[in-house]
Amino acid sequence: MAFTVKEIAAALEAQVFGAAELTVQGASEPADAGLGDLALAMDPKYAPGLAKGQARAAIVWDGADWQALGLEAAIVVPRARYAMSGLTRLMDPGPEIAPGVHPSAIIDPSAEIGDGAAIGPLAVIGPRAEIGPNARIAAHASIAEDAVIGADALLLHRVHIGARVRIGDRFIAQPGAVIGADGFSFVTPEKSRAEDAREALGQEVEALNTSWTRIHSLGTVEVGDDVEIGANSTIDRGTIRATRIGDRTKLDNLVHIGHNVTVGVDCLICGQVGIAGSTRIGDRVVFGGQVGVSDNIFVGDDVVAGGATKIMAKVPAGRVMLGYPAMKMEQFLEAGRNWRRLPRLMDDVKALKKAVSKNERDD
Amino acid sequence: MAFTVKEIAAALEAQVFGAAELTVQGASEPADAGLGDLALAMDPKYAPGLAKGQARAAIVWDGADWQALGLEAAIVVPRARYAMSGLTRLMDPGPEIAPGVHPSAIIDPSAEIGDGAAIGPLAVIGPRAEIGPNARIAAHASIAEDAVIGADALLLHRVHIGARVRIGDRFIAQPGAVIGADGFSFVTPEKSRAEDAREALGQEVEALNTSWTRIHSLGTVEVGDDVEIGANSTIDRGTIRATRIGDRTKLDNLVHIGHNVTVGVDCLICGQVGIAGSTRIGDRVVFGGQVGVSDNIFVGDDVVAGGATKIMAKVPAGRVMLGYPAMKMEQFLEAGRNWRRLPRLMDDVKALKKAVSKNERDD
Amino acid sequence: MAFTVKEIAAALEAQVFGAAELTVQGASEPADAGLGDLALAMDPKYAPGLAKGQARAAIVWDGADWQALGLEAAIVVPRARYAMSGLTRLMDPGPEIAPGVHPSAIIDPSAEIGDGAAIGPLAVIGPRAEIGPNARIAAHASIAEDAVIGADALLLHRVHIGARVRIGDRFIAQPGAVIGADGFSFVTPEKSRAEDAREALGQEVEALNTSWTRIHSLGTVEVGDDVEIGANSTIDRGTIRATRIGDRTKLDNLVHIGHNVTVGVDCLICGQVGIAGSTRIGDRVVFGGQVGVSDNIFVGDDVVAGGATKIMAKVPAGRVMLGYPAMKMEQFLEAGRNWRRLPRLMDDVKALKKAVSKNERDD
Repeated sequence: MAFTVKEIAAALEAQVFGAAELTVQGASEPADAGLGDLALAMDPKYAPGLAKGQARAAIVWDGADWQALGLEAAIVVPRARYAMSGLTRLMDPGPEIAPGVHPSAIIDPSAEIGDGAAIGPLAVIGPRAEIGPNARIAAHASIAEDAVIGADALLLHRVHIGARVRIGDRFIAQPGAVIGADGFSFVTPEKSRAEDAREALGQEVEALNTSWTRIHSLGTVEVGDDVEIGANSTIDRGTIRATRIGDRTKLDNLVHIGHNVTVGVDCLICGQVGIAGSTRIGDRVVFGGQVGVSDNIFVGDDVVAGGATKIMAKVPAGRVMLGYPAMKMEQFLEAGRNWRRLPRLMDDVKALKKAVSKNERDD
Repeated sequence: MAFTVKEIAAALEAQVFGAAELTVQGASEPADAGLGDLALAMDPKYAPGLAKGQARAAIVWDGADWQALGLEAAIVVPRARYAMSGLTRLMDPGPEIAPGVHPSAIIDPSAEIGDGAAIGPLAVIGPRAEIGPNARIAAHASIAEDAVIGADALLLHRVHIGARVRIGDRFIAQPGAVIGADGFSFVTPEKSRAEDAREALGQEVEALNTSWTRIHSLGTVEVGDDVEIGANSTIDRGTIRATRIGDRTKLDNLVHIGHNVTVGVDCLICGQVGIAGSTRIGDRVVFGGQVGVSDNIFVGDDVVAGGATKIMAKVPAGRVMLGYPAMKMEQFLEAGRNWRRLPRLMDDVKALKKAVSKNERDD
Repeated sequence: MAFTVKEIAAALEAQVFGAAELTVQGASEPADAGLGDLALAMDPKYAPGLAKGQARAAIVWDGADWQALGLEAAIVVPRARYAMSGLTRLMDPGPEIAPGVHPSAIIDPSAEIGDGAAIGPLAVIGPRAEIGPNARIAAHASIAEDAVIGADALLLHRVHIGARVRIGDRFIAQPGAVIGADGFSFVTPEKSRAEDAREALGQEVEALNTSWTRIHSLGTVEVGDDVEIGANSTIDRGTIRATRIGDRTKLDNLVHIGHNVTVGVDCLICGQVGIAGSTRIGDRVVFGGQVGVSDNIFVGDDVVAGGATKIMAKVPAGRVMLGYPAMKMEQFLEAGRNWRRLPRLMDDVKALKKAVSKNERDD
């Protein structure tokens, strides 16, 4: 693909300077840029890189003297990260999935495939599944019976959508994602030691586990519009009601969402996060990588939890959390400082004991 | 499917009241229930939900006045969670895998497939593999050479069973599970810095790593009867002996079991748990989500570890653990309390220093 | 397969004693060994096992009296773990993938397949992909358009290699690995609460998230020579430049490598490690299981981090780290000791307060 600098500026709603008709074939870091690349130099720190690379055109920081930087054309953007969104959307070729249904795909005759869908080699679409218009489904993906997927879906390689799962429009699933595995729910005829441990909070527990009986998952998974699920992530179906992922929420790779969980809208859930069964996550929540959330709790709207935070109890809306167990971020930072002061405190107490015992002897 | 209230009560060995011949098509939370649903109202907190929904029949809590709740039929169960097991087993339609072998499946002529097996589209079964009777194998699953799987297995979409792996009866594997990847075992010609660091426990270490040489996995994986493995979980084969998962043990999604590990019987291993190489886990152990266990240690029978516990040393039988590093749960809770008291302790010591120095000046 | 004791000793460059022409069919732990097994008894603790098992030949520890142990032949090795490497390489039959291209595999006519390649059932190789000579590609693996893989690759079942990914020679990928998923990168038109929280380090934050806009991944993944990737691990492509994995680096199962990350050469990354976007990892780094590394930081050469270490800031070369947040291992151990001393310190302070207040009253 080739783009004129003018076209790119228009897509970004940004200002263009110089030779706006110059064409570029791709984007590059300034130092690596060839003659046909648009250099991405949104920060003054990239000036030396521009000198090193061969770019004739660049996106530059607000206030850059593009001519002095040796450029023939420049685009100026106010918020660099946001501009990356428009630029990369424009230039992304997307996965190459041939139009129509590949002859090796196995489509149940009762499935409904929307207009304009592209279905790759060896994909499997089960009985009564409904796929919206313009879906793109890559090799080895499978969609089980009675699943419904909205318009403009992109299912990458070997994504699996389970039976009766319902997904909104503009869904993206990275390779290997599993939506609709069975929930992990087992029960003992009598109260189990794990239940006892929970209630006793660590006191001695006596009940003996007998063996585990399975609670099957009759519920499904309901995914809103504009949701993205990362590679090899897993979302379990609910026991009776559905597990729910709200509109515009994004999940990264290797995320685990337990049965009956509800995740609100506009959330960002980073890599390897795990959310245990029946927990509710509010709207606009942001979880860093490896966050864990216990089962059956509630995390309020607009909560932000840093990497590896372990949330073991309800979190009110708007809190910024960190640590194991999770605490307010400033508490975690204070705890760290106090920890480092502990050796000195111990010395102080030792000195005090000496002084006081001397005082007592002197009396 | 449709069930009479009487049939359901019989399956649960529970008492039935009212119109026992009423039929229901599914189960539902009380507030969401339609006319054809059985409402699940095992707790008095669901009474308002029953009023809101349209259910004519429900499972209710012991002592409920079902007629006052507007029901025509009611089932009363003593232990609600356990009743869920019977009810969901009865109502679960299971995955739709057509009987027999799908024509697109690739079955090696030397494989032995048990009577009554159902093998889905594009499944691959390798040389000399043995699949027990009544197995159900979903699309894209693969079973490598010489693997043996017992009766009544359910392998969901794209499960992979490696070469020579042996699995007992009534096995369930959720989509994407991998049983029998190679172990992660590398060695350097001379002692490595990682080995040094372990021995020196953090003192300065000097050996330089040279590059890693692979130890291949000649061992296999042996899985007992009635085991369930979660979506995208991975179990590595042993180096010489087998990695072993005991009877009736259940693993959740995204769990990692290293090479040579032994997990006992009746264990419950929640999502994203990782168990490093050569560690032994006893019987009836329960691990919450994201628990980690170091390599080459032993965790005793009946140990319960809460979410995100990091077990770095041997744990005696029966302990209830939490924290990083793992400690007894009551210690973890006390540590948390002490941590929160630390600022006050620091103030006390500051005041004491002032008082003592004043005393000394006064002397 | 059968090997003479002499052949095995030659492969290990080790000394052989006794009946060097004796043949064995496999290796075994001493106590489990049958007549045809080579017992692995590299440590005196295995002497009772040898007595219990039936092995006629064994690898024994330096200085062992092999005749007194009842053996007919013995191999003596200086470094037992290293010998395991040579032995297991010799005896590993490897996965059974028939030579040539399986008729059910879907190979795009524009793909280039090297000489001697073996491609299993239902594998998919996309347009213009290049596969080096002697590649072995198992069932259900997929290689997308324009990907390049070097010589002697082993791609196990349902591995996915994304578009334009470039991989060196002697690559091994365990089942389910995904190389080249899209990066997890989203931006808001205005500054987000997560960005605010980072800058304010936990002070109150005010900006409201609006919805997330996707930054597409135009970059690729570049993997060096002699790299191994574990089962169901995921590596994301870069935004503009490539995500990079250096020569001879090994990744275990369920590892997550974010977009733009660079991992150096000769690293060992254990199970469930997560490395967030744009972070750089030096050479010869060793991460235990479940380590997490924040985005946009640098971890120096030769760093060793123990299991579950959460690295949230730059780490200088050569450090041995542990804890959350990561600290030097000796600090972590000291912190643990101090923590356990805290109750006593509190008692001391209480006693001091009493003593001092008595002193003051006495004055």
